[in-house]
Amino acid sequence: MRSSQHSFQVFRDVPPLRQWRRQLLLDRKTLGFVPTMGALHEGHLSLMRQAAAENTDVIVSIYVNPTQFGVNEDLSSYPRTWDSDVAKIEQLNTELAAQGAHTGRVTAVLAPTSKVMYPILPPSSEVDGDGSFVTIMPISRKLEGASRPVFFRGVATVCMKLFNIVTADRAYFGQKDVQQTVVIKRMVKDFHIDTDILIGDTVRENDGLAMSSRNVYLGKRRRAVGLVLFNAMKAAEEVYNSGKYSRSDILDAANRVTSQVLSEQQALAPSQRALYEVHYISLADPDSMDELDVVDPSKGAILSGAIKMTPLEESTLGEDCGLGDGKVPVRLIDNLIFKPHM
Amino acid sequence: MRSSQHSFQVFRDVPPLRQWRRQLLLDRKTLGFVPTMGALHEGHLSLMRQAAAENTDVIVSIYVNPTQFGVNEDLSSYPRTWDSDVAKIEQLNTELAAQGAHTGRVTAVLAPTSKVMYPILPPSSEVDGDGSFVTIMPISRKLEGASRPVFFRGVATVCMKLFNIVTADRAYFGQKDVQQTVVIKRMVKDFHIDTDILIGDTVRENDGLAMSSRNVYLGKRRRAVGLVLFNAMKAAEEVYNSGKYSRSDILDAANRVTSQVLSEQQALAPSQRALYEVHYISLADPDSMDELDVVDPSKGAILSGAIKMTPLEESTLGEDCGLGDGKVPVRLIDNLIFKPHM
Repeated sequence: MRSSQHSFQVFRDVPPLRQWRRQLLLDRKTLGFVPTMGALHEGHLSLMRQAAAENTDVIVSIYVNPTQFGVNEDLSSYPRTWDSDVAKIEQLNTELAAQGAHTGRVTAVLAPTSKVMYPILPPSSEVDGDGSFVTIMPISRKLEGASRPVFFRGVATVCMKLFNIVTADRAYFGQKDVQQTVVIKRMVKDFHIDTDILIGDTVRENDGLAMSSRNVYLGKRRRAVGLVLFNAMKAAEEVYNSGKYSRSDILDAANRVTSQVLSEQQALAPSQRALYEVHYISLADPDSMDELDVVDPSKGAILSGAIKMTPLEESTLGEDCGLGDGKVPVRLIDNLIFKPHM
Repeated sequence: MRSSQHSFQVFRDVPPLRQWRRQLLLDRKTLGFVPTMGALHEGHLSLMRQAAAENTDVIVSIYVNPTQFGVNEDLSSYPRTWDSDVAKIEQLNTELAAQGAHTGRVTAVLAPTSKVMYPILPPSSEVDGDGSFVTIMPISRKLEGASRPVFFRGVATVCMKLFNIVTADRAYFGQKDVQQTVVIKRMVKDFHIDTDILIGDTVRENDGLAMSSRNVYLGKRRRAVGLVLFNAMKAAEEVYNSGKYSRSDILDAANRVTSQVLSEQQALAPSQRALYEVHYISLADPDSMDELDVVDPSKGAILSGAIKMTPLEESTLGEDCGLGDGKVPVRLIDNLIFKPHM
């Protein structure tokens, strides 16, 4: 499936990529890097556009990294969509070409095998599993890490490998995975990785739902109810923007929204409702992600949250229940950056 | 103390080093890297000579890395000898200059502060301490790692940082720390670090004692007795070279030597003897360092050992007891590579 001609090179292994990278360096070109797990959506494309605007060349990696999925997590159900990913990059390159010399292009895709990424031992997802890992503590234990203990170890490990392989001038991550951006920025600083980390705004659907590769599993009903997380955060943001900085003032506003919507849903019939569990709503320091009692308005904060949309209890005839027929639980995360108020 | 003129540049921070490195690259020069903790001896100089023979430029790092010392280990007593280290490198450069264009030179020394090496959190030596770490398992649990649980985590972490800062073409490590060489080679492979790892032979005193920065603590009496480790390993090597490949045949020969010498010492008066504890004598696979029941002669093995020279019980008037007056326990390690027999 990779034999056809693309407007970019496809690398499956490291040595040819290094040769290509070295030539870019000698030609004084610049390289932007967008790491992905495929299943590309407008959020990824937005990062690629930003990378193309700031570099002559962009490389996109597509690799579903096993070590960031826990043993009971959704590695097997993570969408794998090579052909449509390629089509989306081609379409983006056409769009970029129309802009002429003002912007770079996606000139390479790195789609490594697991043997390339984990050459010695098979990748382990066990908390105490053997392997070569990067750990960034204590931040990796918090929030997303609390329910997914190997997640950030897997992310940091695979990103260290990818950064070493690609040696980009700049790498682009989405604001949506805010804790990931904090972990990666810390890793880059602590390990003196010579790549600048840039964060692209969360791309949202028209109604505000943050784009995610997992959204295809939602279906219409859970998609509508899942918007509760964004709405709860907007309510909290209003409180912050009104000049109230205490944790309780800010988080109460969010929790009121999630409680009220859940009550409304619970009152409906099983064939009409979509239920969810709130995993957390956090108000944290932007550097350490330590929870805050009061926001320092000169520093701002990160408001982030996670909810799990549980499987539909009953579906109605002809209902659009999404990929997996409404039976796959879908964890949604989102966040807003509270910018400094002075 | 660093204001005087040297034949090499001294870097204390990363940005000027990166600029220097980039210029080497554009000038098509090659860079060899010798990481050290200072207290330079002939073993280090031998690595620098090898690096100079294979590269136009050599950079030596001098940094006593706190995260590889356990909380109760000898970080505070580790020798720090900047002036004599500089003098030794100067002398080496004079020697290399006499060889003219046939060899490179030490053109840079990296002597970073701990704030540069650990910019965010203070470096932790606790097993469960927070920080950004590289772990290479299971090999880091074995042998040296069994008695020093944070050791290889500290080594891998600081080497990852140094490799990223220096981006050398080649890095040089001494065979004496054989498990370290296996850990580093594995890290470089697993994380796709673009630096070749080269191993220099163990440099020994005339009688065979492996050179080590810690030997200055031995004094005359413990130094003489400490040779037991090398002699035990030579006895085992003879068995291997005679064509016997079973673990018991090989290790029995080594254990006979360590037992006999210890008995002899125990029979002496406290003012005459030097005692030791054998930590391990290991016969292991060269890649995994898994213990072997039988050596595959087509693959060979690593024979390695560690003993602790305990403090002298009594000294005699005018006796050379070494730095610390014979009161510092000194752990000695050594190894021999059993080369394939076909």
